[in-house]
Amino acid sequence: MTEKKFVYLFHEGKANMKMLLGGKGANLAEMTNIGLPVPPGLTLTTETCKEYFKAGKKFPEGMVKQLWENLKTVEEKIGKKFGDVNDPLLVSVRSGAPVSMPGMMDTILNLGLNDETVEGLIKITGNPRFSLDSYRRFIQMFGDVVMGVEHFHFELALENQKKLQSVKDDKDLDADSLRKLIAEYKAIVRRETGEDFPTKPEDQLLRSIEAVFASWYNPRAEVYRKLNRISEDLGTAVNVQCMVFGNMGDDSGTGVAFTRNPSTGEKKLYGEYLMNAQGEDVVAGIRTPLPISKLEKDSPEVYTQFTSICDILENHYRDMQDIEFTIQNNRLYMLQTRTGKRTAQAAIQVAVDMVNEGLITKEEAIMRVDPSSLDQLLHRQIDPKVKLDVLATGLPASPGAASGHIVFSANEADRRGSNGEKVILVRPETTPDDIHGIVAAQGILTSRGGMTSHAAVVARGMGKCCVCGCDALNVDVVNKTITVGDMVLCEDDFISLDGSTGRVAKGQVPLIDPVLSDAFQVFLSWADGIRTLEVHANADTPFDAKKAREMGAEGIGLCRTEHMFMAQDRLPIVQDMIMADSLEARIHALDRLLPIQEGDFYGILKAMDGLAVTIRLLDPPLHEFLPNSESLAIELNTLKCLDQSPERQAEIEKLLVTVRSLHEANPMLGTRGCRLGILYPEIYRMQAKAIFLASARLLKEGFHPVPEVEIPLIIDRGELSILRRVVTEEADKVMAETGVAIEYTVGTMLELPRACLMSGDIVEESDFFSFGTNDLTQTTLGFSRDDAEGKFMNNYLDQKILKENPFAVLDQQGVGQLMQIAVQQSRAKKPELKMGICGEHGGNPSSVEFCHRINLTVVSCSPFRVPIARLAAAQAVLRK
Amino acid sequence: MTEKKFVYLFHEGKANMKMLLGGKGANLAEMTNIGLPVPPGLTLTTETCKEYFKAGKKFPEGMVKQLWENLKTVEEKIGKKFGDVNDPLLVSVRSGAPVSMPGMMDTILNLGLNDETVEGLIKITGNPRFSLDSYRRFIQMFGDVVMGVEHFHFELALENQKKLQSVKDDKDLDADSLRKLIAEYKAIVRRETGEDFPTKPEDQLLRSIEAVFASWYNPRAEVYRKLNRISEDLGTAVNVQCMVFGNMGDDSGTGVAFTRNPSTGEKKLYGEYLMNAQGEDVVAGIRTPLPISKLEKDSPEVYTQFTSICDILENHYRDMQDIEFTIQNNRLYMLQTRTGKRTAQAAIQVAVDMVNEGLITKEEAIMRVDPSSLDQLLHRQIDPKVKLDVLATGLPASPGAASGHIVFSANEADRRGSNGEKVILVRPETTPDDIHGIVAAQGILTSRGGMTSHAAVVARGMGKCCVCGCDALNVDVVNKTITVGDMVLCEDDFISLDGSTGRVAKGQVPLIDPVLSDAFQVFLSWADGIRTLEVHANADTPFDAKKAREMGAEGIGLCRTEHMFMAQDRLPIVQDMIMADSLEARIHALDRLLPIQEGDFYGILKAMDGLAVTIRLLDPPLHEFLPNSESLAIELNTLKCLDQSPERQAEIEKLLVTVRSLHEANPMLGTRGCRLGILYPEIYRMQAKAIFLASARLLKEGFHPVPEVEIPLIIDRGELSILRRVVTEEADKVMAETGVAIEYTVGTMLELPRACLMSGDIVEESDFFSFGTNDLTQTTLGFSRDDAEGKFMNNYLDQKILKENPFAVLDQQGVGQLMQIAVQQSRAKKPELKMGICGEHGGNPSSVEFCHRINLTVVSCSPFRVPIARLAAAQAVLRK
Repeated sequence: MTEKKFVYLFHEGKANMKMLLGGKGANLAEMTNIGLPVPPGLTLTTETCKEYFKAGKKFPEGMVKQLWENLKTVEEKIGKKFGDVNDPLLVSVRSGAPVSMPGMMDTILNLGLNDETVEGLIKITGNPRFSLDSYRRFIQMFGDVVMGVEHFHFELALENQKKLQSVKDDKDLDADSLRKLIAEYKAIVRRETGEDFPTKPEDQLLRSIEAVFASWYNPRAEVYRKLNRISEDLGTAVNVQCMVFGNMGDDSGTGVAFTRNPSTGEKKLYGEYLMNAQGEDVVAGIRTPLPISKLEKDSPEVYTQFTSICDILENHYRDMQDIEFTIQNNRLYMLQTRTGKRTAQAAIQVAVDMVNEGLITKEEAIMRVDPSSLDQLLHRQIDPKVKLDVLATGLPASPGAASGHIVFSANEADRRGSNGEKVILVRPETTPDDIHGIVAAQGILTSRGGMTSHAAVVARGMGKCCVCGCDALNVDVVNKTITVGDMVLCEDDFISLDGSTGRVAKGQVPLIDPVLSDAFQVFLSWADGIRTLEVHANADTPFDAKKAREMGAEGIGLCRTEHMFMAQDRLPIVQDMIMADSLEARIHALDRLLPIQEGDFYGILKAMDGLAVTIRLLDPPLHEFLPNSESLAIELNTLKCLDQSPERQAEIEKLLVTVRSLHEANPMLGTRGCRLGILYPEIYRMQAKAIFLASARLLKEGFHPVPEVEIPLIIDRGELSILRRVVTEEADKVMAETGVAIEYTVGTMLELPRACLMSGDIVEESDFFSFGTNDLTQTTLGFSRDDAEGKFMNNYLDQKILKENPFAVLDQQGVGQLMQIAVQQSRAKKPELKMGICGEHGGNPSSVEFCHRINLTVVSCSPFRVPIARLAAAQAVLRK
Repeated sequence: MTEKKFVYLFHEGKANMKMLLGGKGANLAEMTNIGLPVPPGLTLTTETCKEYFKAGKKFPEGMVKQLWENLKTVEEKIGKKFGDVNDPLLVSVRSGAPVSMPGMMDTILNLGLNDETVEGLIKITGNPRFSLDSYRRFIQMFGDVVMGVEHFHFELALENQKKLQSVKDDKDLDADSLRKLIAEYKAIVRRETGEDFPTKPEDQLLRSIEAVFASWYNPRAEVYRKLNRISEDLGTAVNVQCMVFGNMGDDSGTGVAFTRNPSTGEKKLYGEYLMNAQGEDVVAGIRTPLPISKLEKDSPEVYTQFTSICDILENHYRDMQDIEFTIQNNRLYMLQTRTGKRTAQAAIQVAVDMVNEGLITKEEAIMRVDPSSLDQLLHRQIDPKVKLDVLATGLPASPGAASGHIVFSANEADRRGSNGEKVILVRPETTPDDIHGIVAAQGILTSRGGMTSHAAVVARGMGKCCVCGCDALNVDVVNKTITVGDMVLCEDDFISLDGSTGRVAKGQVPLIDPVLSDAFQVFLSWADGIRTLEVHANADTPFDAKKAREMGAEGIGLCRTEHMFMAQDRLPIVQDMIMADSLEARIHALDRLLPIQEGDFYGILKAMDGLAVTIRLLDPPLHEFLPNSESLAIELNTLKCLDQSPERQAEIEKLLVTVRSLHEANPMLGTRGCRLGILYPEIYRMQAKAIFLASARLLKEGFHPVPEVEIPLIIDRGELSILRRVVTEEADKVMAETGVAIEYTVGTMLELPRACLMSGDIVEESDFFSFGTNDLTQTTLGFSRDDAEGKFMNNYLDQKILKENPFAVLDQQGVGQLMQIAVQQSRAKKPELKMGICGEHGGNPSSVEFCHRINLTVVSCSPFRVPIARLAAAQAVLRK
């Protein structure tokens, strides 16, 4: 067996070797090979790091030998020798993971200096101040990073020295002061660690490599990996590179630049530099860096060389680059290039521009933009430049941002909001009674309730900002206060919400409007040309339907009818219907609902003229339309204790009987969905009739309604067979009465495991299927969403039992298996069956990709996620 | 194509043609062919019936022709002709479904009589009274069954005639009176139907056949089929048979007999007969039939012939027969034989006896007994001879029966029950606080809660009678009354429960004790010799464990630990543990629970010495151990309104914070099972430690404990990996401390769809799997058991959406599919993996058979169902 190769010289690598050489190392290699001025160096592979930890923090066999051999080649290239007291080779030691983790791991510069070699450096550069400053910086960095001496010890000594010398800037310290400082630094190291600062450059290098490996596990790297879902298994490479010095005088400098504007995407060099400085000076912020355009004046040849290198790199990598460079005595050196991070707006602009420039294809452009990032562009945002006074963080229930006056009741929100005032409705939780307040408010904040709570669902449907379940807040609606720790906010105080992160901030915060650029439209049209999945939206009102069409929805994949029942003008009738003690009384109430529902459906079908609208018949348990039993019981108890209002007592007692009879231990698994239709077919009859009356009216008016009647919560063909008959009977009646022929389909959701398992049988009665993955996730995992997200989900994610929240990102292994079973069973019977997904996952990119892979026909999501789904669907095609 | 055969002569059929000829027809054919005296006849097939209805109540093409052709053959055999005015052939027309539906459908006797043929009959028999009586009966039956004349019209006319003639018995009416009555009957028919009574025998026959077909759909047949789950698709055959007359004088008669005692199984003829009578006279109950043994004196030759025919039939059919016969002028005719229905006790006795007689094999014996029927033998029963005054019917939550004084509190039940008094604990619902009352009571009755409610689960575990969710009862514990409609029962009144049917009866009802005969033990030992499935029991206490062993359990498949937490002496400590506001405080409470739990496990492991005990760690959500929030809130409200007890107010407020923080929207899908172990590993640590301490103690004492630690509600390998480590760490600690080596395994339940779908991965961490089919059914179907059974299950069963309650009988199509996926995935990794089922289905025969078919290792059920499972498991082997 040949020995494993742990060390690569730069010219031995390539850009596509990131997994082995890390991003930095791979790109240094690439730049070296395309002939750019890169100081020579070598890379220890990520494998080395992994073996180092596997062996209990021991360098793998043979690595040290390879290191010295390769270092010799570097010495030969640069013409200097490591540890040479006359002309020492100095190196930088830098981390470089396969995935960029900017600033998270450690770096050591100027390595190779000691009391002897520094004199050689002085001799060869003729610059004692520079040389001693480099030595002092090295001791400080090595002392901190490798030997664990707290940073402030060195800072203190430096400040003292500056005070003693009465100078303000580090660079104004003269050589003598620096010599004193170096002695002091070494004393600090001895005092704090009990050992002398290592003088042998070989020791320095090996210890630095170990320190960089170790920094893979430092806390900020761990946190960063967790936040960005980067695997801990990757490990980091280590780059050992000949030093070049930006601090060698006024003809030297260092800088960072993007080849295009990472914020807007504009094709114009964007960056900053500092003359006579090393990288950390830019970071330290003592001196203000200059915009890159000024370099043209400061150093025109270098600038010309740099812009031409930028062009080369962009053309070579075919993407916007983020570049680090150093100028040493008017010579330009490239120290890093990588794909530049950018905002969503810039990503789209760059992608579209590069297609127009002929640099990349449309397909490549499509792959360049992270679909999730589009979210930023579609809602009002808190100006990212503003620092927030965050009070607490709740669940990010509906994205966007809002600022306004606190109000504590829906009526107040309605009154003031309708007058054009900006208000935030704050409630312990919302109920159907609050809907008018939600409509009128800028945003909703609740202290209880999860991502599927009433407030969250309603707000998302409206594209309205909402933060839910913010349990750090004590909302007292009686005294009209919000208490957070010691702080008390009152009615009318300003508050701001960030629905994308769940942050709740004190005061008013400036918001910025979404701008949907032309590039955005062009870009999505390309996506539409590629994707094969249809993208529909979930929308319950004509307003939402219009919004959905604007966002590019090709139909409505889920129109929920329960929100129509909850509107203030209908709720009393719905309650009459529920409280009805006979079939006649119930039908009487339903007769009053019929024209209202017909109006709802008329509006939606008209807004979606020519496109399919999947209308789900009533789904939630009936008790959701009634008041809460505990509050009723307490009101009754109060009246009894105080011996008041016997009439109201009787009324409550009657109401309580119904509320209690409808009470369920687990309403999610109770009397809802088609079970209501089976128990009370008259409800579904009324809804079906309303759909067909609306369709007939539209057809007469020359429109083209495409209603798809959807029966929820089916587990067996028998249910669907009964309810399909209910629907077709109503259709036949309406057609006979109106003389209009209506085309329609009847289908069901697959939202329970049994529905998936029995879909091959159910499909015989169904014209289409739509996966209700919210409920399917709840039942497959046995997770009540509200309970899981409030109670144990975070723990599960922290302990890595789950990689993602399965309500946001489809659980492909578990839930996905059921979906695949269903696709296979159903399509075996009906190969052309329309199969879709509705619910949150329809707007999640990786879930959309899964839907494409298993061959669904449609994804449906909230209107504001339609562009995300359009892009994700196109990427799925390209990825497959 | 040859014409379909709609009509079979008796000699053309066989016993195994029941599906086509119906049970009666097939057996008449069989008896004909073995040479027994059967009056000749023919059978119209069940296919005929089906085609008749399919064609919209039209006889299928060719049937009528076949009927007359075959009737001609019958005429030739008997030497009489249909409609012959000199010697008319008379026939009976009887239904006969493939499955016995005794008395549910219609029969017409003496068909073929009219004003002319009756004179021929008089001539040929020389018996005008008999002939006219037969004619009068025929008009009455045909009028009623075929023409729809209400029965009472004829009864009235008959009574009048008897009054006019001053006679008491029908048979005392003379010929003249009968002639008058016949005229009157015909007038009634004309008056009530507007048509004359049909005189043509051919018309009479065809119309009678149609009427018998129609009776397949009469209401009592529909109800019977529903009750007995008989498919509507089977249809009925029709038998047309030459009449023989038991009413031809004192040398004639009719009777019914079983070849053995159907109640006890004793090998002794058992039956009744009446001389000079037709079948309906026996039913009418005007004359008391005589025991069959008297026939030996009345008619010794006939008796001898009859007993020898009984022997022939038993030997031929190799089973106990239920026989109908008629004697006409001292000649014996067989009119029916079928397998006799019997009690469970008789079934076992007969099966064991027949094996001993060499008549059947042990395997056949095993297949002869319906496993479900064993339930009757294992609990006290209400004496079936007593008529009950049923107040209401609730859910049959735990079988058996009980009578006692009503008490309304657990303390009262405890006090009086412990004094040896028989009491029934009646509550709206029970809580863990009531456990001592449940122990002391004879039975439990609740007005709320389903089959998994606290009361039901606890009662079943104890084998104690319980009726739950009896919502017709208004239980007022304050005023100590039960109101049902207008009736009010008070404390101390007697009440009786039938836990097998859910009936609640007023007053004290005599109960009979179970007798486990020697035959029962022999019979089950045969089953044990055949079955390959192990049968375990679900048991939570040493007492239950002992009971389980008595019933033949070979281990404990599910030992729930939460009931241990709920006992009165532990609950306060458990509540301290839950209310703990720091890890330290929680561990302190757990330390107090440790010795108690250790004692629990010691007792159970000792009782099951040498056999496996699968101990499930804590499963239910913690709020189940705390008081209900609504009652706390109301108490608080009362104190506030009345301005009382500020200390208690503060206490409740504190408690409410915890109760509310633990509140969940769907606790079934919430923070329970292993999620508790993940959030509070210290709880599982304490339980594991208790298990291992108990095991170590037993090992030191020379016992052989076999603990299997079971982690509930797993959905992912990650959970099990973390919790397995918790368990093994505790095991290692205990082994190190005690110096005792303990053998144990760690496994999990598969009780959520995702667990089944991911079982191939989870199995890597699991030593065994046990399907928790109760929860698996809830999540796969999306049915909360409590809610479903209280709200929509009956409707689903009535509408035939579901064939069976899936909580009683495993849903093989849906849930079973997940189980098969899991077996396949898991056994692919570990071919010898122990896989079991616990929960209700483990004691349901068809579910046991399914478990055998998919190759599980173990079924586990409540101790009282262990014999059922033993038998069902043996039958599964024989059926496979």
